[in-house]
Parts: sequence; C-alpha cells; structure tokens
Amino acid sequence: MTTHTDAGFDAVATTAEAAADFLRDFATMSEFGATPNGGVDRQAASEADVAQRRWLAQLLESRGLRVEYDRIGNQFGLLELNPGAPYVIVGSHMDSQPTAGRFDGAYGVLAGAHAAFRLAEEWAADGIIPPCNVAVVNWFNEEGSRFAPSMMGSSVYTGALPLEQAFATTDRAGVSVAEALAPTGFLGHGDGPRAASCAEIHIEQGRLLENAGTTIGLVSASWAASKYVVTVEGAQAHSGATVMEDRQDALYGAALLVVFARELADRFPGVLHTAVGQLDVYPNSPVVVASEVKLLLDLRCADETILAEANALLRERFIEIERQARVGIRQSLSHAWGINPYQPEGVELARASAAKLGHAHGDILTVAGHDSINMKEIVPTVMLFVPSVDGISHNEGEYTRDDDLLAGLEVLTDVVRRLAHGELPATDGTVRR
Amino acid sequence: MTTHTDAGFDAVATTAEAAADFLRDFATMSEFGATPNGGVDRQAASEADVAQRRWLAQLLESRGLRVEYDRIGNQFGLLELNPGAPYVIVGSHMDSQPTAGRFDGAYGVLAGAHAAFRLAEEWAADGIIPPCNVAVVNWFNEEGSRFAPSMMGSSVYTGALPLEQAFATTDRAGVSVAEALAPTGFLGHGDGPRAASCAEIHIEQGRLLENAGTTIGLVSASWAASKYVVTVEGAQAHSGATVMEDRQDALYGAALLVVFARELADRFPGVLHTAVGQLDVYPNSPVVVASEVKLLLDLRCADETILAEANALLRERFIEIERQARVGIRQSLSHAWGINPYQPEGVELARASAAKLGHAHGDILTVAGHDSINMKEIVPTVMLFVPSVDGISHNEGEYTRDDDLLAGLEVLTDVVRRLAHGELPATDGTVRR
Repeated sequence: MTTHTDAGFDAVATTAEAAADFLRDFATMSEFGATPNGGVDRQAASEADVAQRRWLAQLLESRGLRVEYDRIGNQFGLLELNPGAPYVIVGSHMDSQPTAGRFDGAYGVLAGAHAAFRLAEEWAADGIIPPCNVAVVNWFNEEGSRFAPSMMGSSVYTGALPLEQAFATTDRAGVSVAEALAPTGFLGHGDGPRAASCAEIHIEQGRLLENAGTTIGLVSASWAASKYVVTVEGAQAHSGATVMEDRQDALYGAALLVVFARELADRFPGVLHTAVGQLDVYPNSPVVVASEVKLLLDLRCADETILAEANALLRERFIEIERQARVGIRQSLSHAWGINPYQPEGVELARASAAKLGHAHGDILTVAGHDSINMKEIVPTVMLFVPSVDGISHNEGEYTRDDDLLAGLEVLTDVVRRLAHGELPATDGTVRR
Repeated sequence: MTTHTDAGFDAVATTAEAAADFLRDFATMSEFGATPNGGVDRQAASEADVAQRRWLAQLLESRGLRVEYDRIGNQFGLLELNPGAPYVIVGSHMDSQPTAGRFDGAYGVLAGAHAAFRLAEEWAADGIIPPCNVAVVNWFNEEGSRFAPSMMGSSVYTGALPLEQAFATTDRAGVSVAEALAPTGFLGHGDGPRAASCAEIHIEQGRLLENAGTTIGLVSASWAASKYVVTVEGAQAHSGATVMEDRQDALYGAALLVVFARELADRFPGVLHTAVGQLDVYPNSPVVVASEVKLLLDLRCADETILAEANALLRERFIEIERQARVGIRQSLSHAWGINPYQPEGVELARASAAKLGHAHGDILTVAGHDSINMKEIVPTVMLFVPSVDGISHNEGEYTRDDDLLAGLEVLTDVVRRLAHGELPATDGTVRR
C-alpha cells in the first residue's frame, strides 16, 4: 500500500470550472420531483425518487465510480483504488418530505459525489493510492414521511434496524417497503461496502450559523430526544345529539396534548423543541365524535436534565388529560436518546480543514436526525453544516446560497481526503465494521 | 275517490305475528355491513349499502310495492292505490357512518315499510282507497360521512341542493357521487313521487326520552345550528430544527380551536353543543410542522340568542388564534339555520296517535339533522323519536329495546294512516310539490 505524500493533505480551493460543474449538476438534480413553488416532492421509492437515483447512477458511472446497492436499497458509488481496503462513506439522502426543499439531503449526496470526483482526479494525477477507498452514498428513506421510521437505510446498514422490520413497514396505502423497492431495481444483496469512516454535509435547517455569520458548522453532538407514539381513545358518538358531558372525544384529548406540547416548549425557551407533526383521526366524519386519534409527539432538547423534567411533566399531563377529556391515552417511546457526541477528533479534523481553507466556522449541535448519527455509532464520523437562509427547512422555500454550497464542498473534499488517508482511525485502532 | 270510513282512523295495536315479522326483518337488515362489535358500516354507495338496497327492493316488491329511484338515487317503494294522487312519504335512510349503530336511519326505513305493508292489508280488507298513496323512502346519503353534505338525497328531492352539485361531490379517494352511483343501478330519472305529507321515525340519539321514561318523542322543532368549514394555514418547517418562535404551526392553531370549541359548550351547559369531528393535517409527516389543517366545526343550540353570542365569541377567538399560533384562519359557514319548527298540527296529530295507543309520549327537540327537516319545508311533516339506551349513537353500541321499536312502529303506522286520509293538509290547502 502506497502511503500518502504530504501533497495529499493540502486543502486546495475548488476551481471555477469545478464549481460551475457542481452548480450545474445541482440544478439538474433539483428538477426531479420539482414543485411549482421551487421545492421538490420525492418521497422514498416514489417515481421522482427512483428517477433521480437512476440519474445519480449515471452521473457516478460517467465519472468512473462503480454503482452498487445493498439489501435495503442504499445506493453506493464506489471509488475503489485500493482493493480490499475499507471505505470512507460520504453522502446523505436524496429522498424528501412532501413539498419540501431542494437542499435537504440532496446537497450532501451531490457534494459527496463531487468530492469523490475531485479526489479521484487528484490521486490519479499524483499517482497516489490512499489507504481507504471512497464510497459516495445515497441512503434509502432518510425522511421517513412515507415509511416510518426515518433514517431507515442507514439504520439497516449499521445494524440498528432489522431488515425484516424495514421491509414490512407500510405506507398509508398499505404498500410495504419490500413491495415499493422490488420493481425499482435498487434492491441489492449484502451489507454494502465496509466502512472505515464517514462524512456527511447537510444544510443546518436552523438559523444559528446565519445569525453568527458562520459558513461551516462543525457538528459536535446531536440533541437529546424523546419521541412518543400516542393513541388517544374515546368513544364514537353523535357530534350533535350527544350531551356534552357524555362525550369521550378523542380529538379533544389530542388537541389538549398538542397545545400542552407547545406550552412545554415555551417553559424552556431555546432549549426544548416540541412538535406534533402527524395526527390521524378516526372515523374522521363530520358528525361523529372521534373514537381514536393517533399522533406522534417529539421532544428534542439541548439539555438532558431539562428533557427529563419535560418528560415528567408530559407524563403528568397524560393523566390529567385522560380525566379532563374522559379518554384513555396509550403511549410509548419509539425513540429515546441522550446528547450524543460525534468523535471529538473528527470535529478537530474538520476544524483544521475549514481553518486552512479560510472559511468562518464554529461548533454547533444538530437538532435534526441525520444518517451520520447512525454511522458514528460504528465508525469515526464527521458531520458538517452549511447555513440555511432564515432557518427555513422542510419547506419549498428552503435556501442555501451558492457560495455556502461551494464552501461546504471544499471543506468536505478536504475532510474526505484526510479520512481516506487514515487521519481518523477508529478509537480502538481498527475499523469496526 | 272513496272517502275513508271511521274504521280507517282507529289505531290498532300491532299483532304478535306482525311484531315478530318486523323484528325478523330488522335482524336480517342488520347483517348488511355488520361489524364484529354489533354495529354496521354502510357508507353511502358502498358495497354494503348497495347490497342492503337490493334486499330492501326485494322486500318491498314481495309485498306488492313498486320500487323506483329518482335522479339522485333515492329509493322509493310505491303503494299506489289512488292513481294520480300524491303520496305520504314515510321512511328515513339506510346508509350509516363508519362503524356505526344498526338503528340510526335503518329503523325508520323498515318501520315505514312495515307501516305501509300493514295499511295495504288493512285498506284492501276494508275496501278503502285513501285520498293519498304511500311511498316508503330510503333517502340516499343522509350521513354525509363519505360524501358531504349530509341529507343529500332529501336535499335534492326538495330542491335545496342542485343535482349537479350533489353529483360532483367527491369522497377522499376522488370518486364522485355520480361515479359511485352509476354502476349500482340506483340512478333513476325524474323527481320521485309527488309528496302530500311526510312522516319519519328515528332513534333519539340522546337520553332525554330514557331519562323521562317516555316511549314516543313528538319532535316539535330542530335546534339552531352554525356549521363552519375552517382552514388553518401555517408554513411547513422542520419539526425538530426550527426554533419555536419561527414556527407557524397549523396543527397548533387547529388544536387551540378544538379546545376552544369545548370551552364554549361548557360556558352554556345543556344549551350549546359543539364539535370538531373531522380534521385533516397536511403534510402529516412525523418531522414536518403542518402547513395546513382543514376541519369542520359545528355549533348546535337550543336558543338562537345564545347561538349568536357563541358565534361572536368564536369569531373573536379565530383572530386571537391567528396571532397566538402565527397562522391564518380562513373560515366560512357551510350551514346556518335557526330554531326550525315542525308544523304544530303534525305534532298534535302524532300526540293523538300516541295517546290512543297508550304509549308514554312528550314533546322533544331534535339536535341531530334528519331528512324530515328538509321535507317539512315543502309539505306537512311528522317526526317521531324512540329512546336510545344511554343516548349512545354513531357508535356500534347504539341500542333501542324491541318494545320501543314496536311501540314506534305502532304510532308511525297510525300517523301514516291519518296522513294518507288527508288529516294534515298543507297550510294553504294544497300539496306544495
């Protein structure tokens, strides 16, 4: 194995040609599932998601990468320069929420691809064989809007979610993941390329970077979170004739809960985010008091002590609402995790890259979930953010300026270069997967 | 035209054989769309609704009635003894809410049919040709759960709803009423039989009769009502990353409204009923703040002054919620009506029937809507209630005791006998339709 030369560590600004190339591909990519208001609609395994994956495969192959799929449909573009060596996995996801923005996830996949293209050229020109190969990744179903849970592809890849469970998940039309993937040609075999390390770049989806005038966010940890699956159980009744005190209105109980979730966030300003994004009413008829409401309630928190206090208050409120609305509340935690740090060595590696390239940078936490949160459980992982204008995300108006996209690409390229050269070994000195 | 004999006015108790016949048919009828918990699921133009209508047609024809359908699919069983004379329209509806009870509507249709069977025998035996014919009716889509608005069939029959508007209404799958009815064979031509008067019997769906130990409710008026169609407009955002003060959460706004609707009812106990039965969230994804919630909000009131006050408070609250949740609220009244009396002469006619038959009876208002509310706008109309055990309705546990069902049938039969004999002429002395 040829060891790297010092030249391999020099961070070099992107050429004007490479920048234009990236922005052109970004514009083309944004046409898949494009909405009239400038956003995209590319739910996992939808027609638009499938078409975009075909386009990405062509792009990767046209630049000499070999395209493969693993058993859950994660899409990999393999730059295998050192046969048998493990891979730096770099990328994100191209699926989207309904009527979402064009940057979320997709930017990270394309930036990963262009980082790989550039490094391939560089290494070829310099006659370097890096200790690690590079795999561009487009994780399957990060968003989880059509098939819950989110981060499905990376969860199966890292072993956090059994394949059978992922396959059996159904959308609202009753179509399973296995059924949705089967006709796409994206269902491969095996576990995908062996990882040595991982890098992901993503838009911030908040406005801390923009407010601070920072271009590159060095993600040091993810917020703690508690995610509840809640069923409020009442009894069907005539919504006109039934006397009020006889009603066991599941929607009234659910509404009290939605309002309380907001009050809880207001109690801990800036530290606790709460949300109910999904809520389904049964029978959902104009003249029937609802007998059942299912909803998902999330608490996300920058402080584990405050999260524990918020969870305790929420559990008290469940009981009060049962009495107040004469309903039953069944609830369970579908996800619960604490403040979850990225490897500090990875943060320092990214800091060195950003500093050398002269981009304003600073540490930041991620509130949103990302595939890299799964990956950091198995290999050293670097997560980078670029600013989101006004913090708008999961919205067709999501926007990141070209300069920031290109700065992120530069830093990511340098990070992948360093990772490929083995600058960030696994803590125990071995590749864990 | 042969005038009636005095014998025609005698209220006669149902024979044991006729009672058993009715209860047997009731049990058979309840098998259509039967649910495991003892209820039924027969939404308008569903497979179960269609199968049940075919059964009813056979039953009516087997007893000598001629079955016809009008242009909106109302099903009529015609007992035409006096060609050219108008009809006493007697019946209700057989469609149901999802997972509903087996008495709501269906009881009234079957009671109407058995009243007609008995009168047909009686008149044949006595050689009487009554001044009016009798038409048993099964109105199309009274419930409005699949296709809004409710009372669709009687609204088209009475001219309150244009046929084209009814036909164009779609269900959640995008199927229109016209498309749903086309393959059923229930789309007829014309306006249906000409009405002279109308009678409908229904379960109370409340517990006033039961509490008072009354068997027959003489419905004197319907509650006033205001029904709102509301759209709460927010903005999609990441439900984790977006800072709380940036959120424009349509579901939070909608929840505040659902809670306020209940508080409003609590302010006017027993006089005001409020409900939100239907609520739909967009995009309804686990990790997206909702950009739009559509809901239906009803106020029903026994007092028009209080209803006006409640409407004013609600309109103030719309504005407060727009500010509090940073959302927009678009709302319009889809229905608004005052306290709406049935013809007092009809109430007295029914009172005389109940008294002669020895059934405990008393005046009552209806909170729920019924097809007879449409019919009383065009012809003299009698509405009767029988008790609902515990007031449970729009619920699989809906129940009315056999004795009450049979008592109702007896009174209804006498009411129809009197109406057919012209005891309740239109106010202006003519048939209005």
